[in-house]
Amino acid sequence: MGDRRFTNEQIDRLLRPKSVAVIGASDRHGALGATLLNNLVQYEFDGDIYPVNPKRDELQGLKVYHSVEDLPEGIDCAVLAIPRLFVIDTVRGLAAKGCGAVVIYSAGFSEAGEEGMKDQLELGRIAAEHGVVIEGPNCLGCTNYIARVPLTFVETNMQTPPKGTRAVGIASQSGALAAVLATALHPRGLYVSSSISTGNEAASGVEDYVEWLVDDEDTHVIAMYVESLRRPKAFIAAARRARAAGKPIVMLHPGKSNKAQESAATHTGAMAGDYQLMKAKLGREGVIFADTLEELADITEIALRCKALPGAHMVVLGESGALRGLAFDIAEDIGLDLLHMDDDNSPELRAILPDFVPVSNPTDITALGLSEPEIYTKVLTALLEDERVGSVVASIIQSDPITSKIKFPAIIKVLESGTFPKPLVFAGVDEGARVPKEYIEGLHEVGIPWFPSTERAYRAIARLADLAKRDLTDRSGAPLVIDGLDTVAGVVPEYKAKALLKPLGIAFPESQFAATADEAAAAAEAIGFPVVMKAQAAALGHKSDAGGVILNLKTADDVRAAFGTMYANVANYDASIQLDGVLIEKMGKMGTEMIVGAKSDPEWGPVVLAGFGGVTAEILKDVKLFTPDLGVEQVKAGLLELKQAPILKGWRGAPALDVDALAELIVQIGRVMTGNPRIREIDLNPVIIHPKGEGVAALDALMLVE
Amino acid sequence: MGDRRFTNEQIDRLLRPKSVAVIGASDRHGALGATLLNNLVQYEFDGDIYPVNPKRDELQGLKVYHSVEDLPEGIDCAVLAIPRLFVIDTVRGLAAKGCGAVVIYSAGFSEAGEEGMKDQLELGRIAAEHGVVIEGPNCLGCTNYIARVPLTFVETNMQTPPKGTRAVGIASQSGALAAVLATALHPRGLYVSSSISTGNEAASGVEDYVEWLVDDEDTHVIAMYVESLRRPKAFIAAARRARAAGKPIVMLHPGKSNKAQESAATHTGAMAGDYQLMKAKLGREGVIFADTLEELADITEIALRCKALPGAHMVVLGESGALRGLAFDIAEDIGLDLLHMDDDNSPELRAILPDFVPVSNPTDITALGLSEPEIYTKVLTALLEDERVGSVVASIIQSDPITSKIKFPAIIKVLESGTFPKPLVFAGVDEGARVPKEYIEGLHEVGIPWFPSTERAYRAIARLADLAKRDLTDRSGAPLVIDGLDTVAGVVPEYKAKALLKPLGIAFPESQFAATADEAAAAAEAIGFPVVMKAQAAALGHKSDAGGVILNLKTADDVRAAFGTMYANVANYDASIQLDGVLIEKMGKMGTEMIVGAKSDPEWGPVVLAGFGGVTAEILKDVKLFTPDLGVEQVKAGLLELKQAPILKGWRGAPALDVDALAELIVQIGRVMTGNPRIREIDLNPVIIHPKGEGVAALDALMLVE
Repeated sequence: MGDRRFTNEQIDRLLRPKSVAVIGASDRHGALGATLLNNLVQYEFDGDIYPVNPKRDELQGLKVYHSVEDLPEGIDCAVLAIPRLFVIDTVRGLAAKGCGAVVIYSAGFSEAGEEGMKDQLELGRIAAEHGVVIEGPNCLGCTNYIARVPLTFVETNMQTPPKGTRAVGIASQSGALAAVLATALHPRGLYVSSSISTGNEAASGVEDYVEWLVDDEDTHVIAMYVESLRRPKAFIAAARRARAAGKPIVMLHPGKSNKAQESAATHTGAMAGDYQLMKAKLGREGVIFADTLEELADITEIALRCKALPGAHMVVLGESGALRGLAFDIAEDIGLDLLHMDDDNSPELRAILPDFVPVSNPTDITALGLSEPEIYTKVLTALLEDERVGSVVASIIQSDPITSKIKFPAIIKVLESGTFPKPLVFAGVDEGARVPKEYIEGLHEVGIPWFPSTERAYRAIARLADLAKRDLTDRSGAPLVIDGLDTVAGVVPEYKAKALLKPLGIAFPESQFAATADEAAAAAEAIGFPVVMKAQAAALGHKSDAGGVILNLKTADDVRAAFGTMYANVANYDASIQLDGVLIEKMGKMGTEMIVGAKSDPEWGPVVLAGFGGVTAEILKDVKLFTPDLGVEQVKAGLLELKQAPILKGWRGAPALDVDALAELIVQIGRVMTGNPRIREIDLNPVIIHPKGEGVAALDALMLVE
Repeated sequence: MGDRRFTNEQIDRLLRPKSVAVIGASDRHGALGATLLNNLVQYEFDGDIYPVNPKRDELQGLKVYHSVEDLPEGIDCAVLAIPRLFVIDTVRGLAAKGCGAVVIYSAGFSEAGEEGMKDQLELGRIAAEHGVVIEGPNCLGCTNYIARVPLTFVETNMQTPPKGTRAVGIASQSGALAAVLATALHPRGLYVSSSISTGNEAASGVEDYVEWLVDDEDTHVIAMYVESLRRPKAFIAAARRARAAGKPIVMLHPGKSNKAQESAATHTGAMAGDYQLMKAKLGREGVIFADTLEELADITEIALRCKALPGAHMVVLGESGALRGLAFDIAEDIGLDLLHMDDDNSPELRAILPDFVPVSNPTDITALGLSEPEIYTKVLTALLEDERVGSVVASIIQSDPITSKIKFPAIIKVLESGTFPKPLVFAGVDEGARVPKEYIEGLHEVGIPWFPSTERAYRAIARLADLAKRDLTDRSGAPLVIDGLDTVAGVVPEYKAKALLKPLGIAFPESQFAATADEAAAAAEAIGFPVVMKAQAAALGHKSDAGGVILNLKTADDVRAAFGTMYANVANYDASIQLDGVLIEKMGKMGTEMIVGAKSDPEWGPVVLAGFGGVTAEILKDVKLFTPDLGVEQVKAGLLELKQAPILKGWRGAPALDVDALAELIVQIGRVMTGNPRIREIDLNPVIIHPKGEGVAALDALMLVE
């Protein structure tokens, strides 16, 4: 169970309790303990309820206990609707009584400063010591819609999924978002299995709840709102299991912008990690990212309703030339691939369409469907049967009940009479059109999501298609151990870093270390002129600034002279720096400068960053993150998504560059990172990329080792 | 009336006709002539109806005419619901009878090839000769919702705006889009004044209809779908009048992507122009661009309902920390400015909020509003009263009828008791929540748009705020006439172009033209070494490729030798090129390479393109278009929006660059373009930008003159 803190059986006591204590039960209007008790009674919680209130004897016809001490041993779950001040002692009392799970609504813990953080750590200790699951503090509780357990003070709409219906499990670090998402999904005819607001996660976090949801047979998709994953490795393990179980995880995670990261820090008291790193690591595990709340619900709907997730290429059946152009624009904007279809490459479709309609994508059938609605059935079926097609959108003018009556049944018929391993999505183009409810329900019954606009259908499909483009099974980047790494620690200077990495196939120019002027001259003679000389010392971070790089030395005498100059330069720059010597290196051809760097994050593990170098690139952030287990083909595909990728492909008559060699270099660096956990960082900057077939050359190398 | 083809009085005969002939009237179910006649009768068209059908005597209780010849003289408008084949002759007949306007539904004209184009031109000729307004061909007709004139075969929902209600006029090159937009606006409680589908625009185009809508007192906002403006100058004139009349134009125009441009060409048979050029020119006239159909309706709603358009900075009242982070992310993504607010800079808000709520934007009032709903009224009023604020969004968890009952009235109260020159927009965060209709209507009554999601409210406001950021009144870039331009024509070589432009203050390095080696040496002595020598001839397009640029000449002898070498190089490159001589120019300091180019589009007039130079920039398209009437401050603001703007501002210790000087250069080039209409193109590439205070230097100059 990896880094899990709680077993499913332990979490069952929170989410499938047989007995629930309501600490702070009340009948005062608006009191949390009143709404909670109401929820339990109203939805006929199928277990024992133990209200606790020192001043009452009876509430809602139930016997009231005056204190935690009065409660029987071994209650599954206690919900604390009490002031912050009494939380710690009450939890201690409950733990002593063998209570299995505690829900804490109160705020004022890690998000409220030092004192709060101290108390939160104490909650964590109690949980660990007694094996108590603690949901919260600072949360809205949880609801199991299957077992009908509403442990929340939010007015709950207990829509239990009918038998056999697919449902989404919600795990959210924001209680508001969990509630809002359920509110948005229910009117779409979608069902929630269980929803958990994790709050400050004093003990159990989203990692644990996702593990539980993966094993929950009533959960088919997992929707999440996350601001900061506290245990990345545990989450990766959970995500991997979810993928194996065929349960997509759809995640909304603010933090793209700096301001959002700051906001998360003040919101839950946790430090937001590196957003891009998180996304690279979780994307690798098949987690699907929504950019907005709208997208979270939209993607969830497709994942719930459709037989399979979209493949890479989308096709559209449309009814207007104008909407064709708009589709092209939005597709380019959001990176959605529209399959190219024409009369020649799509004979099946050609045979179905009337002569005056050219085969294209989007296919524009004009107003033809009004007089011949069977065209919808035929064209959509042909598109779904086409092996090149990853998903199909019917982009439809709905207008009014009369028009709907003509079009909807012909579209519903497609999935009534056939099953296809890809989504068919209905997207209205006239939001607000008077479509009778029965038609939308008709779509739902056969597994066709109905979207109010094409834009939204396209965006949701784009996120899902992005997943389809990546090979999540290839983990060919296997660990690679460096011989002799135990001889170094701290900052490793260039000559030593190159010596360690070169045997693993990292492409460095030919070089020799030299400790004297004569050794340097001899090295240069051996390598062949011209050469470059570089000062070597662990303490010398910026060689160039210190006059520690001299280019284009053409004779042995030049080299000898440069040796003296360089020692003088460095002494002049910082007298405390003692050089090990110099590196004499062959001057190579110039070329496009790339950078390849790797770091090992203490939480997330290693990752490799690669992209275009130089000032411009720093501003444009034209780099990508690669997980260290990727194979060459996937790294190559990633490189070809860089903004300046046209340079790699050969721009305006310039030759195509050796992307294969660069990808191989990146893969090797990734393998080195996983094979040698002591390495904290590797920096190859610049890496010159030569024309195809001529390889790459890493001109500098730095390593940081524990 | 500039380039207008029809007066309002002429267009009145189409849009406010007193008599309508239905050519091809019918009662066959589904026939265009039947639906059209139905529409006229059903909505009690308040004028004379003349059905024409050779085989019928009576339809819908109306007398039927057997031919156009039988019709009385001077009917205002005839609608042709007849086969393509009969269109031209019928229009001729109608024109001869003094008919004022013709609507042609039939397709098969310019979009269908050469023959169709020929007939379409013939329609244009008839229209011009007889002063007949022709709507179409290939259109869905028009509807005047005020005068209740439905000249369309689309089932029409004739929602006439109540007296005093603001309404939108729709002019669309796609009939489907016009219909779809009306369908989407009506359920939002918004009204259309008139909607015109212009089709292939054989005679009258969107330009003419916009002019009419500007003068239509029942139209307050103009919404458009455009694929290709056929008469840009006429449209600019109309847009300028719309702006003066306080009627915002909101335009959806596909063509950002190449594929959309191709699609437009096949859709309406018109060539799509340069999308970016169109956007620069119309943006300058205050036209607001929507990227999607959803945005078109959303922006239209804000423009219709709110007392004023949004200013530059948006503020948000929210109820969840999670939604704060999401707001930051989306704002950065779409370029929306959130006003920075904190306890120190916003004392009014500080005084209103309880201690535990810090002042911020988005302000997160947590669940406080549930117990103290007056907080909505107070906070929103304070935000609207704040002069820094351009628009206010209330981002609200609606949940259910009970929650709505608490929150909506407190928000409605804000505009019930106050009027503010900026929008207040309500954005629900839980789309689909059961909000009683009366609350949404309550918002509408006081002028608050209700949006189903914050994302959509933010996007619409971002488009409108973008307009607020630009100064549309400053047209200080006045025409500037070049002395001596009449001495050149065709491609003007560098030395002549520089001689013409230098007196206008364009910054070139010091240079002299020389026709002999001795003249060259003398010129170099006069200028001071080192110098560069450049071959000069109109026919020599690419000097460098021909060996026609020699850098870093340090002595007079070097210059003499180079002169011979250069003549030999060019002769060797292309023996047909006769050099005028060489330009001797001072070698300047290197620096960041920019490009400044200008061209005069035959339809749109002149525009200046400027941005970062070099290969990378070509790939990244890191350039902006500037209209030639802009002042320095506006050009500067545009330059600072370039992707690589951090380089201009001083990146990582490098000095800030002379953006003022670059902006002045761009303004001058713009003024030159408007002052000298014979100039087709000017190319300054590269323009070196030096540190602040040290100016810019245009190293090369090319001109193309008529």
